[in-house]
Order: sequence, then structure tokens, then C-alpha cells
Amino acid sequence: MAVETKAQIVAAAGETLKARGFAGTSTRAIAATGGFNPGLIFYYYGSLHELLVAVLAESSAARLARYRSAVEDAATIAELFVVLRRIYREDYETGYVRVVSELVAGGIAHRELGPRVVELMEPWIELAEGAIERALTDSPFEQMVAPRELALAAITFYLGANLLTQLLDESAAVERLLDLGEQAAPMLELLRQPR
Amino acid sequence: MAVETKAQIVAAAGETLKARGFAGTSTRAIAATGGFNPGLIFYYYGSLHELLVAVLAESSAARLARYRSAVEDAATIAELFVVLRRIYREDYETGYVRVVSELVAGGIAHRELGPRVVELMEPWIELAEGAIERALTDSPFEQMVAPRELALAAITFYLGANLLTQLLDESAAVERLLDLGEQAAPMLELLRQPR
Repeated sequence: MAVETKAQIVAAAGETLKARGFAGTSTRAIAATGGFNPGLIFYYYGSLHELLVAVLAESSAARLARYRSAVEDAATIAELFVVLRRIYREDYETGYVRVVSELVAGGIAHRELGPRVVELMEPWIELAEGAIERALTDSPFEQMVAPRELALAAITFYLGANLLTQLLDESAAVERLLDLGEQAAPMLELLRQPR
Repeated sequence: MAVETKAQIVAAAGETLKARGFAGTSTRAIAATGGFNPGLIFYYYGSLHELLVAVLAESSAARLARYRSAVEDAATIAELFVVLRRIYREDYETGYVRVVSELVAGGIAHRELGPRVVELMEPWIELAEGAIERALTDSPFEQMVAPRELALAAITFYLGANLLTQLLDESAAVERLLDLGEQAAPMLELLRQPR
């Protein structure tokens, strides 16, 4: 039963975050959304911030699985960008972009929260690292750049894109960036040419 | 006298933002920092948010001038990255990274503020666009990518880097990204080889 209750609490917190933002997501507001006693939040999560980290961790894991299969299935870089665009649009529509942005905004405002948010970037960096490693194998650039650092750069870019989307309250700006990816794909394919 | 008073108000607001973050920067807190009557903020700026936008606009213009001369003076991409690293460290030490991050966090929390923050990215995109245009001239990639979109990507990355630095409350992560830039510089020089 505890597992079920915890899932309900996380779902209510996620909904509240999407509807009211970080500042409007109090334990009282979450409890009202889910129709349970606010005390349950402290019983199961210890604090509001721990619960919000759990919300980000859960939605991050779900989105990560989606990106992982896209990265694994794409045969070319051009194909990968087409898929990334589709998934990013889903991220926007399902509110995942908002969840990330609200937690980042919260992490800026509350110092103890910032490093927790950054920790959750780690599996994303690993995913990008693997993809970059595979893409660079046998290319002239294999020895020139470290995949780990390039992956950190990619995730830093993704973070910036999420915030930009949310600041503009529209996904148009990021669609333009994805256009760029599609445009650049033939160039990236060139870079992959074996020596 | 009005010009002087406005400058004092902007300076007090900037200091308060760096010391207390967006959430702690009330008109009362700013007036206490500067030792003036809170009414002056409304008289000269109309609202707290307008004043905070003015703080970002002013520090952004100052940093932009610094980056512009660095971009113009660098003879090679490798040289540019060395200079960018030095300026970015200044951005961190002078609190500019914090001012950007706090306004982005505020723009996430307050919908009317978000687009104002994004507007201030425009001159940065133009600066990057000019630099990229010059770098791509006569390279094999001149016709392959639009400098404007590449510039938007660069500024999106810079936004992500600012936020990451602030979330971790340290500049070490971004130093690693600048390492990457320095590592990648020879590769980028290769890309610039004329056809």
C-alpha cells in the first residue's frame, strides 16, 4: 500500500507543479490536488523538497527511457534529429519541460536543492556520452575530443533549451533549434567519415 | 539628477539580487540596501519587475561590450576560447552569472517577465551570429548551416551553462566545458580550412 500511496503523492505533486509552478506548490496545495492529508507528504518524503526531487526523478527516468530507445534505434544522425524533435515536442506537451524548468528555478532560489537537480542530470550525460562515443568511433575526431565533456555540453544545451522554451511559454524557439540540428546532420555525417 | 538617482536604484537592486536572490529582492529590501525611499522605485521604474529588467539590461550591456572586444581581437578560435574562459570567470566572480540566473528563475515563476528576459538575449545572438559568419566564410560549411540558428544554439548553450554554474554554486563545471572548447579548437580550425 505504501508504494501506491507514494505514487499518488508524486502524481499529485507533479500535477500541482505543472499547474502552479514551484512557488505555488506548497504541501497544502499538493494535498488538495490529491485529496489526502498533508501529513502524508512528511511521513513518506520527509520534506516538500524531497518530494519535488522525487517528482523530477520519476519523470526524468520515464523521459530518459524514451530518449534511450530513440538513440538506439536511429541509424543515421539525420534520423536521430527527426526523432529528437518528436520526443521534445512530447516533453513540452506532457509538461516535462515545465517540471524541469520549475525545479531549476527552485534550485536557484533554494541552495540545498540545486545540487540535487544537477545530480539527476547524470544519467542523461551518460546516455549522451554513449551515443557520442558510438558516433565518433573510427572518425577523424575520435582522439580529439572527450565524449564525456561533449556529452556534458549537450546536456547543458538541453537545459538551456528547456528554460528558453519555458520562458517564452512556447516551443517555437526550440523547434528552430531542432531545424538547425536537421540542417547540420549532413555536416555531422561528414565528420563521421572513417579515416 | 534623475539619471544619477536611477543609476543608484539600479545599483542597489543589483546588489540586493546578488545577495538575496530573486525571492528576497523586494522593493523594501532594495530601498534598504540603497538607503532611499521605496516610492522612488515606482516613480522611476513603475514596478519592481521593470527595475529588475533594467538591472539585467545594464549588466548585460556591460558584459556584452567585454565579449565583443574579445571576439573582435581573437585571431584564432583557440585564442578565442582562452579569452572566453577568462571573461566567463569574471562573469562568475562579479555576480553577473547570478543576476542572469535569478532573472531566469524569476521569468519562470512570473510569466510576464519571461519574454522580457529572452528579449535581452537578442544582442548576444547578434554578436554570436557575426562571429560565426566570419568563422564560416570560405569554409566548406558556409552554405550548410545558417549562422543565425547556430548563434541561437550558442546562446542557448550559454544560458544552460549560466544556470548550471549557479545550481552548483561553483564555476568548476563550466571550467570543464571551457576545457572542451579549448580541446575542440584545433577541430574547429580544421573546419575553417578553405575549400
